[in-house]
Amino acid sequence: MQAILDRIAKTIGASTERGQVATYIPDLAQVDPNQFGIAVCLANGQEYFAGDARTPFSIQSVSKVFAVALALGKVGDGLWRYVGREPSGLAFDSIMLLERERGIPRNPFINAGAIVTTDTYLAGSTPAEALGGLLRFVRDAAEDNDIHINDAVARGEMDTADRNFALAHYMKSHGNLSQDAQHTMGTYCHQCAIDMSCLQLARAGRFLMGGAAGPRLVTPERARRIQALMMTCGHYDGSGDFAFRVGLPGKSGVGGGILVINPGVASIAVWSPGLNAYGNSKLGTEAMEALAQELDWSVFS
Amino acid sequence: MQAILDRIAKTIGASTERGQVATYIPDLAQVDPNQFGIAVCLANGQEYFAGDARTPFSIQSVSKVFAVALALGKVGDGLWRYVGREPSGLAFDSIMLLERERGIPRNPFINAGAIVTTDTYLAGSTPAEALGGLLRFVRDAAEDNDIHINDAVARGEMDTADRNFALAHYMKSHGNLSQDAQHTMGTYCHQCAIDMSCLQLARAGRFLMGGAAGPRLVTPERARRIQALMMTCGHYDGSGDFAFRVGLPGKSGVGGGILVINPGVASIAVWSPGLNAYGNSKLGTEAMEALAQELDWSVFS
Amino acid sequence: MQAILDRIAKTIGASTERGQVATYIPDLAQVDPNQFGIAVCLANGQEYFAGDARTPFSIQSVSKVFAVALALGKVGDGLWRYVGREPSGLAFDSIMLLERERGIPRNPFINAGAIVTTDTYLAGSTPAEALGGLLRFVRDAAEDNDIHINDAVARGEMDTADRNFALAHYMKSHGNLSQDAQHTMGTYCHQCAIDMSCLQLARAGRFLMGGAAGPRLVTPERARRIQALMMTCGHYDGSGDFAFRVGLPGKSGVGGGILVINPGVASIAVWSPGLNAYGNSKLGTEAMEALAQELDWSVFS
Amino acid sequence: MQAILDRIAKTIGASTERGQVATYIPDLAQVDPNQFGIAVCLANGQEYFAGDARTPFSIQSVSKVFAVALALGKVGDGLWRYVGREPSGLAFDSIMLLERERGIPRNPFINAGAIVTTDTYLAGSTPAEALGGLLRFVRDAAEDNDIHINDAVARGEMDTADRNFALAHYMKSHGNLSQDAQHTMGTYCHQCAIDMSCLQLARAGRFLMGGAAGPRLVTPERARRIQALMMTCGHYDGSGDFAFRVGLPGKSGVGGGILVINPGVASIAVWSPGLNAYGNSKLGTEAMEALAQELDWSVFS
Repeated sequence: MQAILDRIAKTIGASTERGQVATYIPDLAQVDPNQFGIAVCLANGQEYFAGDARTPFSIQSVSKVFAVALALGKVGDGLWRYVGREPSGLAFDSIMLLERERGIPRNPFINAGAIVTTDTYLAGSTPAEALGGLLRFVRDAAEDNDIHINDAVARGEMDTADRNFALAHYMKSHGNLSQDAQHTMGTYCHQCAIDMSCLQLARAGRFLMGGAAGPRLVTPERARRIQALMMTCGHYDGSGDFAFRVGLPGKSGVGGGILVINPGVASIAVWSPGLNAYGNSKLGTEAMEALAQELDWSVFS
Repeated sequence: MQAILDRIAKTIGASTERGQVATYIPDLAQVDPNQFGIAVCLANGQEYFAGDARTPFSIQSVSKVFAVALALGKVGDGLWRYVGREPSGLAFDSIMLLERERGIPRNPFINAGAIVTTDTYLAGSTPAEALGGLLRFVRDAAEDNDIHINDAVARGEMDTADRNFALAHYMKSHGNLSQDAQHTMGTYCHQCAIDMSCLQLARAGRFLMGGAAGPRLVTPERARRIQALMMTCGHYDGSGDFAFRVGLPGKSGVGGGILVINPGVASIAVWSPGLNAYGNSKLGTEAMEALAQELDWSVFS
Repeated sequence: MQAILDRIAKTIGASTERGQVATYIPDLAQVDPNQFGIAVCLANGQEYFAGDARTPFSIQSVSKVFAVALALGKVGDGLWRYVGREPSGLAFDSIMLLERERGIPRNPFINAGAIVTTDTYLAGSTPAEALGGLLRFVRDAAEDNDIHINDAVARGEMDTADRNFALAHYMKSHGNLSQDAQHTMGTYCHQCAIDMSCLQLARAGRFLMGGAAGPRLVTPERARRIQALMMTCGHYDGSGDFAFRVGLPGKSGVGGGILVINPGVASIAVWSPGLNAYGNSKLGTEAMEALAQELDWSVFS
Repeated sequence: MQAILDRIAKTIGASTERGQVATYIPDLAQVDPNQFGIAVCLANGQEYFAGDARTPFSIQSVSKVFAVALALGKVGDGLWRYVGREPSGLAFDSIMLLERERGIPRNPFINAGAIVTTDTYLAGSTPAEALGGLLRFVRDAAEDNDIHINDAVARGEMDTADRNFALAHYMKSHGNLSQDAQHTMGTYCHQCAIDMSCLQLARAGRFLMGGAAGPRLVTPERARRIQALMMTCGHYDGSGDFAFRVGLPGKSGVGGGILVINPGVASIAVWSPGLNAYGNSKLGTEAMEALAQELDWSVFS
């Protein structure tokens, strides 16, 4: 396994066509595109990593996985009153379907759905308490207290969050936001600004994979269901393509990170800042495709 | 296993809330809604079935699985020039995204995409030859020559195919149909009108599951990829819900049949004519959910 | 003329089917639906009115006519870089086309377009100055200084403006708003909250009709162009219907007011709080249809 | 007037930027783009023309004006059960709104609406009878029997009508077409293929303008209403722009012709084959704008 990761880091990780780094937040725009990290936590407890696997990066939308687990922990299936479970077929920040479906977003992994998810775990708490609870969940999952929210990124997020504010206000206008839009958006932007390394992220993903390694934070049934959402909705309008090429459930973020689960076998995190046309890490996707092919990993075999 | 199937047939199969039988084709509208069948072919060659598992029904859109395998066999990845691999997020016969995406349908399992798939395996043949090839594929997969196209259903299909004709002409207008629309639609309507029983369908699905049982008609990689499409796109705008509740790749048809694969383990066919709001078999979905739960079957565990 | 207005006030104004009063702002929801006023200012200077023609009401979107005149006065045809001149075909607060057209609203008379118009005349001023300029324009047009902004309505507007905030933030995210969204929306909500009576509104509309009466605030060409916008876009997705039935350019507001111009002949204001399905005054539309028919008024004859 | 027309033909008619000739029908693609004609019939009976005003061209969608008059003559306001009266805000052949509005097209001047209009006047007749009735109406309007359908163009139309067939089948699937789609489309394609010169077309438009000249084929009210449709919907998604720039109701066709009415004053036809981005005659629009400005013609003054 170590040899495989080393080879992937050396070949794919050094590719000259690296995609485009997200530019809308100053702190993200300045990230060095020539970075690549990968880490694998096996169900038997073994860990492997290569490249910049210990460098923290902004996990951005990968945080939606932890947020949905937290919200389900709080309200259970009540969450599905506010958000659907279907792929959207459109871009991550599209507002069209929201009009069509009267303010109920398609799934918790597009921006609108994640904002509702945040709104759900925020209800009844202050933003500080809610974010404290989220960080605690992530730290418990990773068994690592050195995981933090990057305030500069969170502020940059807020300053450029007009599209997300539009989504939040739109849902609010349909009565599908319990908190003030400003309030929910502040929490959401901080949620997106969690910094983690590949190794931390792979460890934090173990609660989904089953097996002996890592803490047990959700029931097996809930873990399966979250993976189902990752498979059908985890890569925005590139979800079908990822399922087709990689065959494993994953969730990407515009920081260039992807968390992928091979159920019962492994939790994998890969990171490279450059993005493809769907807004998913270009080299990260290619690395996952290579890894899955090399190891014959697929939920469909 | 036999006991479980018997129990499911007895309880779920006898439910009083059976959904609505598709009414748009006279021959389908007359089907007795009080039927229910289920069949399981294990990878080790064992077969189990219960209820009306030997009664032939119109497989309708389940045929899209065989059609896409046939088209991939003919043109390989060239198919993806004409059709995408992403969930559509909209109803099976929606024409909206087709306008947005200039005549390229989202995936081969919504009607527009299936029409393009038919058009692809039809190219260079007469409809009779093309349909002969499709039937041969299905018969080989099921190892059963007693599988036929129901001409009355095919004709009824043609008579009520205005929505599908609209899709075909629309794609033709964007240059995404190689044959005459009338020509392709005739073949498509016959493709949908294949009659099979649950037992035949479960057997025909074995080429996707891997393992020793059944013929080997596609490479393991292609089988995985077709399952990925089934997982993300197999139940129209209820695909996410099926993945969430059942956790296995499947493909449904408006005749009330569903083909489901548990990779490396089983090929399952279930049938009950009444449909839920998404156009998928109501009791079939419930039966699959129960079966998967009972046996702890899920690709995500 | 007086006899005709009296008759219309007596018959249509007393109709029992009065539509639904807008409920989203508390101050509007409490308006007595049993009110009806109509006022006509002829190009020769004569004035006629009937019913509650001297009762002030919230002109709401009718203010968009004055706002567009003000913005055109400030930046001329530069306004059309930020907003189009085409009917939208959708509801007044739809966000769909805005996604399709990358933040450029269809026309200045739907909400998104009016927000951009406000943003344009606001640029370089404080909201107080900008609103002062707008009020001055309206007062000059009506030759009446007793026209004011209703602060309670403006505040209620702000409190329930989530849909409009969504539009503003969405346009901002596309770079089509020069001011902060909060800033522009504050001004926009006050603009909508101008109170006027039918008589005041009919007088204020004279600057569009041409002829000797009233002040000359825009060139004849600009007056014609504003009327063209009113004809094609003045009643949201009921614009075609109003043109078809009444045949005169008009602009409605959810307060139940409509300003209508018969070019070279008259400026007409009608008011009744109950709305039809398009969000236009039900009795107001009926009264205008009756008046136009009675007097054989139509730009198409 | 003659001097003005001569000057327009000499300057605008000789412009080097002439737009793009429609290419989808072979016979239209071969039309010499360097042609320009204009004709004016005044309400007092005087006629003026310049350029290629006696050269026949394919009137294409301008025929929709005569078709709607014919259909209204046959079923009266019953027509509005099958088609709306609102601008569509989208391209002439868009199918999106048709899905949204369940098969009821927005107005009779976009393709879908015109197909329904044809379907309406066709009901109960053979296509030959129906087309005979339409030709008779046009010939009566122009007081000229030398007006014919161009069979080569009609056939070319049919051969390339996939988009329109898609619209027809889509409406049929919603029950909004009384005839077989093939049947209605055949009639529709012949309707579009009427050949007329500018002079013939201007004469044929007199039934809408009122005044002493020309035959009286519809009531004044119906003439006004058809003009209202022309004003709000006559130039597809460029209707608002035409109203803004020209201020007169008009109807364009992809053959490059435009029929424009100045109510009570004139019927004008202009023709130049090159089209602008909306699919309306580029020089025709410019010529109408110049003519209206020169003569101070506008319904809004």
